[in-house]
Amino acid sequence: MSSPIRYYYDLMSQPSRALFIIFRLSNMPFEDCVVALRNGEHLTEDFKQQINRFQRVPCIHDNGYKLAESVAILRYLSAKGKIPEHLYPKYFVDQSRVDEFLEWQHMSLRLTCAMYFRTVWLEPLLTGRTPSEAKIETVRMHMERNLDVVEEVWLEGKDFLTGSALSVADIFAACEIEQTRMADYDVRIKYPKIRAWLKRVRQSCNPHYDVAHEFVYKISGTGPQAKL
Amino acid sequence: MSSPIRYYYDLMSQPSRALFIIFRLSNMPFEDCVVALRNGEHLTEDFKQQINRFQRVPCIHDNGYKLAESVAILRYLSAKGKIPEHLYPKYFVDQSRVDEFLEWQHMSLRLTCAMYFRTVWLEPLLTGRTPSEAKIETVRMHMERNLDVVEEVWLEGKDFLTGSALSVADIFAACEIEQTRMADYDVRIKYPKIRAWLKRVRQSCNPHYDVAHEFVYKISGTGPQAKL
Repeated sequence: MSSPIRYYYDLMSQPSRALFIIFRLSNMPFEDCVVALRNGEHLTEDFKQQINRFQRVPCIHDNGYKLAESVAILRYLSAKGKIPEHLYPKYFVDQSRVDEFLEWQHMSLRLTCAMYFRTVWLEPLLTGRTPSEAKIETVRMHMERNLDVVEEVWLEGKDFLTGSALSVADIFAACEIEQTRMADYDVRIKYPKIRAWLKRVRQSCNPHYDVAHEFVYKISGTGPQAKL
Repeated sequence: MSSPIRYYYDLMSQPSRALFIIFRLSNMPFEDCVVALRNGEHLTEDFKQQINRFQRVPCIHDNGYKLAESVAILRYLSAKGKIPEHLYPKYFVDQSRVDEFLEWQHMSLRLTCAMYFRTVWLEPLLTGRTPSEAKIETVRMHMERNLDVVEEVWLEGKDFLTGSALSVADIFAACEIEQTRMADYDVRIKYPKIRAWLKRVRQSCNPHYDVAHEFVYKISGTGPQAKL
């Protein structure tokens, strides 16, 4: 008899939140294995040997099979029939359009939103030093170059990133963008399409979206409805 | 009747080289559509409208269907039966191990090798300014942190990154690492496993590997055999 997937995650991590929402929306049972990144639980030798050789989250254990990298995990579970087709298409042409987004985001949206978050929120917290205005301006500019592409290219003429309905692409993207709230960035001011799209993504994913973002809302002090 | 895939690429781009080698190894016919990045051919409005809305290479047109992002393209062509199973497995468990590498590399190996190349070679060429020793040291440290993972984790106990035989993971990785040659970095000095693995990858992919890297060898002035 097979056990449920063991899911190692921390809701402070963007791809951890994305998979959490996707698993919940998919009604996929999983064993909750919370890893407290803030306590360095992923940095021990034991974690490296037993859980994930890359010492990161998210990752899964499926009856002994260990897999890391959120997008690889999503595809693996989709192939096992655990993810509904409307979230990640099975027809290869439709799937390629979602894949195109999932591959695009790493070095563009994800990288630059994470850099903004790290520079403005995380590093000051860890080091006690405030970043210079020039540094903040640079990371904001890099991030906004990619938000421009989301607004003008991905959301051009459609309600969701890869079509007329929600897919995993929207969930991964929203989790990256929500992270910047904690660094007091409000994406809704400059980007009306992203603003309306984020509302749609949240509505399509709730109650799981709000559960996953509870800590983000708390830190940012804005609450889920703020400025929406 | 369907036409061959139109492949838009520039062999100066790492993922362009990777797909070029994969297509050649797969005996997949394609129409050569070379885009000279150095002349800014990808930056025109016409390119954006007609070829790739993200204004990058590589990308393909398959009888009118436009797709960007090298990993998404690979998966799409694999689903169409154009890529042999030994290069990209069809069995989902084996495929997930290759996917794990393809997803891992974006923000780690690819990002940091590209930053090193850009800082040490490309930016000085474009701006005429030499980077400071401290800056070079920083980008080298970031890159070597990821080369350490390739050496110690990915190549631990096996001949190729994802198993005992060549897969697309090796080809993508090798093309990123070869790029740093142009910035006079010799990965073979500190990394004996990477050194031996690069030899195996080149041998498994030739003559296509050397064709794809002709310009890299020329710029680096080392030639394919140098220091191997």
